[in-house]
This record gives sequence, C-alpha cells and structure tokens, in this order.
Amino acid sequence: MVVSLSRRGEVEPFHAMDILAEANRLKASGIPVVSMAVGQPSDPAPAGVRQAAAHALKMGLIGYTDALGLPSLRKAIAEHYADHYGLDVPASRIAVTTGSSAAFNLAFLAMFDPGDRVAIAAPGYPAYRNIMAALGIEIVEIELDGAAYLHAGRLKAAHREKPLKGVLFASPANPTGAVIPANELSALVKTAQELGIAVISDEIYHRLAYTAPDTTALAHGPDVTVINSFSKYYCMTGWRIGWMVLPEELVRPVERIAQSLYISPPELSQIAAIEAFKATGELEVVKARYAGNRELLMKRLPELGFALAAPMDGAFYAFCDVTRHTNDSMVFARRMLAEAHVAATPGRDFDPLQGHRTMRFSYAGSHDDMIEALARIECWLK
Amino acid sequence: MVVSLSRRGEVEPFHAMDILAEANRLKASGIPVVSMAVGQPSDPAPAGVRQAAAHALKMGLIGYTDALGLPSLRKAIAEHYADHYGLDVPASRIAVTTGSSAAFNLAFLAMFDPGDRVAIAAPGYPAYRNIMAALGIEIVEIELDGAAYLHAGRLKAAHREKPLKGVLFASPANPTGAVIPANELSALVKTAQELGIAVISDEIYHRLAYTAPDTTALAHGPDVTVINSFSKYYCMTGWRIGWMVLPEELVRPVERIAQSLYISPPELSQIAAIEAFKATGELEVVKARYAGNRELLMKRLPELGFALAAPMDGAFYAFCDVTRHTNDSMVFARRMLAEAHVAATPGRDFDPLQGHRTMRFSYAGSHDDMIEALARIECWLK
Repeated sequence: MVVSLSRRGEVEPFHAMDILAEANRLKASGIPVVSMAVGQPSDPAPAGVRQAAAHALKMGLIGYTDALGLPSLRKAIAEHYADHYGLDVPASRIAVTTGSSAAFNLAFLAMFDPGDRVAIAAPGYPAYRNIMAALGIEIVEIELDGAAYLHAGRLKAAHREKPLKGVLFASPANPTGAVIPANELSALVKTAQELGIAVISDEIYHRLAYTAPDTTALAHGPDVTVINSFSKYYCMTGWRIGWMVLPEELVRPVERIAQSLYISPPELSQIAAIEAFKATGELEVVKARYAGNRELLMKRLPELGFALAAPMDGAFYAFCDVTRHTNDSMVFARRMLAEAHVAATPGRDFDPLQGHRTMRFSYAGSHDDMIEALARIECWLK
Repeated sequence: MVVSLSRRGEVEPFHAMDILAEANRLKASGIPVVSMAVGQPSDPAPAGVRQAAAHALKMGLIGYTDALGLPSLRKAIAEHYADHYGLDVPASRIAVTTGSSAAFNLAFLAMFDPGDRVAIAAPGYPAYRNIMAALGIEIVEIELDGAAYLHAGRLKAAHREKPLKGVLFASPANPTGAVIPANELSALVKTAQELGIAVISDEIYHRLAYTAPDTTALAHGPDVTVINSFSKYYCMTGWRIGWMVLPEELVRPVERIAQSLYISPPELSQIAAIEAFKATGELEVVKARYAGNRELLMKRLPELGFALAAPMDGAFYAFCDVTRHTNDSMVFARRMLAEAHVAATPGRDFDPLQGHRTMRFSYAGSHDDMIEALARIECWLK
C-alpha cells in the first residue's frame, strides 16, 4: 500500500463540525437533538433570495462566472458599503468568495508566505488557526486573559517580542460575541499600520450587534482586507457565499489564486445573494429573535452554573466558563450530547490552551429550541 | 500603506479564466462572442437535478452539512462505482467536495508537504500546477513530447532522476482529450506503487470517452486517490460539486482539513447531485452532440491550418498545433477574441514550456456555435 500522508495535514479537527456530524448521526437514528453547536441560523434565506434562486433554476444554465464573481453581485456589495457604512468602495475591490472560508484561504495565500508570523486572539474562530497551520504560517496566539477583545497595546507588545507580518481580528467575535468599540478599533488599525502589520478584519457578524452600531475596519484604513459573508445575518450558511474587500494591490493576486483554487463561487448562490441586501425587514425580525434568545441565555446560563466568560454584545454566541461542572469541556460536551441530546461546542476549538475551561452555546436557533435545551441541561445536571 | 503580498501568491493566471472574463465583458457590451475557451457544457443540469434543487428551495433551510457531505449523496456516489465500474467502494471512503477544485486542494494538502516532488504531465490542467505552486509543492512536469499520455516508463525515469512523492494524471485528459488504455493505466498505477509513489487519478472526464469504455485507476489499486466531479458529463459546472474516493487512511485527514477550509460543500448542489446519476438518458443525448461536434472539428480544424496535436478520444477538447498561424498562441488567442469574437484557450495554460505553439478549443457548446465559430475563424484568417 502506498498512501501518502502529509505532516501539514495533521491540523486539529474543527470540533464543532465533529459535534455536528455526531448530532446528525443521532438525528438520523431518530433522537431529537437540539443543536447549539454550530453558528447557523434556524431560519431559511429570505424569501426574495430563494425566489431569485428558483427563477435562475428555471432559466437554465448555472455556469462558471468570473473568478471574482458576477459583476452585478460585486456592485450590490459595493453599494452595501455606501448604504450601511457611508463608505465609497469601488466594485473592482470586491471579490465574491465561496463563503468566508474561501476568503480566509485566499487572503492567507495572497498575503503570507510560510513562516510569516500572523497574530490572532485566543479564544478565536478555529478555522483561522487550522487554515494557517495547513499553509505553514506561524500563528501567534495572543491570549485575551479575560479582556473582551484585542487591544492595540497587546498587539504592540507581541510585535516587539518578534515582528508580526499580519494580524487578524473579528468584531463581533466568535466565540465571545465581543464587539470592539469604534475608538479601540481605530487604535488597533492605526497601530498595526504604524508597525507595518497587515490587517485582516473578519466582519462576518456585522449587523448582529445588540449594543452599538457596526464599525468596519475599512473606515480606519483603506489597505485593510475585510472578510464578510452571507452566512450569518443573511441566513445563507449552506449556500457558501461570502466576499472580501481588498486593497487595490491584492485584487489581481487574489483573482489569480481564485481562478485555480475555486474557478468561481457557486453561481446560483451569487444570483440569489444579490437579493439579500433588500431583505432587511425580514432579517431584522430574525435578529429580534436572537435578541430574545440572548436575554434568555444571559439570565439562565449563569443560573445553571455556566458563568458568562465574555460580554454578549454581538453575533449569536454565549461563551461560558464551565469549570463549575467540569475540568474537560470536550468530555463534557460529548456527554451532554449523548445524554441530554443538546449539542454545544467545547472551548478547545477556540483556544487550545485554555479551552478545556470553556464552552460556546449558539443561540441562532429558535426560541423554543433554546427553552427546550435549557430545560434538558437543567434536568441532566441534576 | 501596509499591504502584504506573498511570494507564493505569484502563481500564473488561469488564462482560460482571464479569456472568460474578457469574453464576458465583450458580451456585456453587446458583442456576440462564441466561447470555445472554457470546458463548460452549454446544456443546463438535467431536469431531475433542477427539480430536486427547486424542491429543496421550497422546503426552506439550506444549511451546513457534514464536512464530507450528505450521507445520501456519498451513498449515491458509492453506488455509481458499483453500477458503472462494477467496483465495491464503501460510502465511508467518499468525500463530497466543492467541485474538483476543492478535491485537488484537499488531496495536495493532506498528502504532500512543501518541497515534496509531485509529477504531472505537460500539457496538463493548469490548476494542478497553480495550486501545487501556491502550496509549496515541487512540480515535476513530464513533457509528453508528442506521446498521447504518460507512460509508466517515463514515470520510472523521472523517479530515477530524483525520487517522486506523488503522481497525478488524468484520463480522458485536459487539454489533449487523450485516453490512457486500460493496460497502460494498470502499468502506470502498478509502477507507481512499486516505486512508493502515491497516485492521484483525475477522472473528471469519465463518461466522455468516444472510443473505449471508462477504466478507473481504482480498479488497479485501492490506495489510489480518485477525483471526479459533476461539472462535465453531468453539466453542473456552476454548482461547484465534485467528489473524491480516498484510501481509508486519508479519510480523516481530508475531513479535518475540509472542516476548516470549506466547512461543507453547498447543500443545494449536494441534494441536487443525487439525481444526476438517474439522468443517463438525458445526458447521453448531450454526449451525442459532443460526438457530432467532435467529428466536425476533427475535420475542419486541420483544414483551417490547426493541426491536431493529440487524439480526440475523450473529454470535449481539440488540442491543436497553431504554428502555421503564429509563434505566440497567447497573442493569437487575444486577437481572435477581439477581432473574430471567438474565444479559445492559449496553450500556455497547459504547458509553460511548449504552450506558445498550441491552443485548446472546447467543443462542449452547441453544434450551431461550433459551425459559427469555424466560419468566423475561417473568415478572420483570410
């Protein structure tokens, strides 16, 4: 037998996806699992989005598009920056991607070489770490140590220790839900620029902040790479459609890499996504439900012994300290799924060092599911 | 300004995609371009596929699936190996991917480390080279030098020069359309195994051979990685849906990497693809049209001074020597697009060394388009 296994392929699993697969297996065998594991809205895409897709299906050909996406979608995204942020971004700087997943991969490939040092906050989205590891980038995890988000001072300190090539942060953040205030975001971007550190701003949870309006890193520096997606606010996870806003100089490198690595994003999803920006009325109703779930979890999780480890300012996650119940959140999550049939994500996904102490509960599901999950957990803990 | 540009991002463009983008711009400005540039069927996906997608749209939620794909689709693909090849492949060894593009990226990441030497045939599909370059794999191009396909002896010779970690070949091949005969394929796989070289077999053009039945490399070695897709025979390019058949040992590494790099393939495309295997009647009609186009081009292209540089045994490409018209097929292709409004792909995409002498014409379009394209080229050459 000749099977070649690479060393770089030995990345960590995305534990939330393993939990999802296990939850799907249980569901398929008839067990009514409530999932709080994956950051996935329980609502379908807006009606207009689905209608546009249905129409395109009827019209026939679903083919390759330009590697950077349909011009009409790139234009719609550019207009979103004018409408939502009051920013003038030309459509030529927008790259449509196969979800934010492709956007991260493209940004890392186009911006960094093997051995380059790139900082992320811990806890943080596991795919950052796993994709960078697969691509040979040296990951510099800056432990937040109880701070809600990455401060400019911490970035400076990490850079002083050994120079950084890039920094990636998210606001609202996964798994903490923390929002970086506008003035702090400005300081972070400006500090990075002064130090010559390239910035990637993950804004996938924009339009899902509950306490302050959105601020895009683009407002503080035109050479920032912004990554966003239709998956979260726009309820289009399984459509695999997202975008990047690129500095001029990165447009052609990203296009070249995307041509070979992705050919193009799925065309049906592109056609449909154009309609997403027109569905604000419908989507704000969904967001109001998240807000209700958030209120519920903010009260009930601490009562059940899950102390909130971060403010729940945005996204749809409660990030909890679970040390009152366990020293190993991975084992705890597997047991909770097997016995209480509630899926949540062990902290290990977000922080290899401190993650055994934490868990993430997604409240993107229905309000009834939240009530049911909390009742099951309460009963199970007894 | 702080913009970080990597060295590895300096991959070649996929020139066919650049030509496609240029053709799309011309079309958008009202010019009736005939495209023979991209390997894209002009037929839509089969009716059953589109109906399944429409039904799923109506049912609502399009979400994340398991990273390796919907169990029902993995099972349908496994059954295809029994039906079409008489091979017993368990569904657990099938990974559904976001087109063959994702499959190549996943295979390269899971199998090879930076610096590993992997052989491909030249001419060959440009994304092989471009993805491997981005991932730091050392590409060993074995020039076919007029041979129709890669022979076991050439692989052995390349390995003797300096050891290879892997080899990747396609049959039917892009851009040549050449089919590796069953006994030669067997020799190639067995030679690779004897030498400890891991095999990736690109079978994306299976079911599109005109002179002999399909043989899968899997029949000659269970530890081969097979890559296939719904894009070509099944007319589902823009749906971005493909698959891999993996050796047992690679399943979990590929799953782990896919979880972070892709989350999951687009769910709507997965649901729809299940129906593709039931559409043989409809798809054989499409294939018969390709066969008609093939006859036409086989006769007319040489008459127009485009000598066939390879047998047209499979896929939907005519690969031609264009030296009677030009010493630079890139310039020639751009001029033909601008002046005759016919898009075809310069050989540079497929062979950096000899590609200036060749061009690829895709005959996946309608018969009328072929007739029109040939008439325009004839007129333009005069």
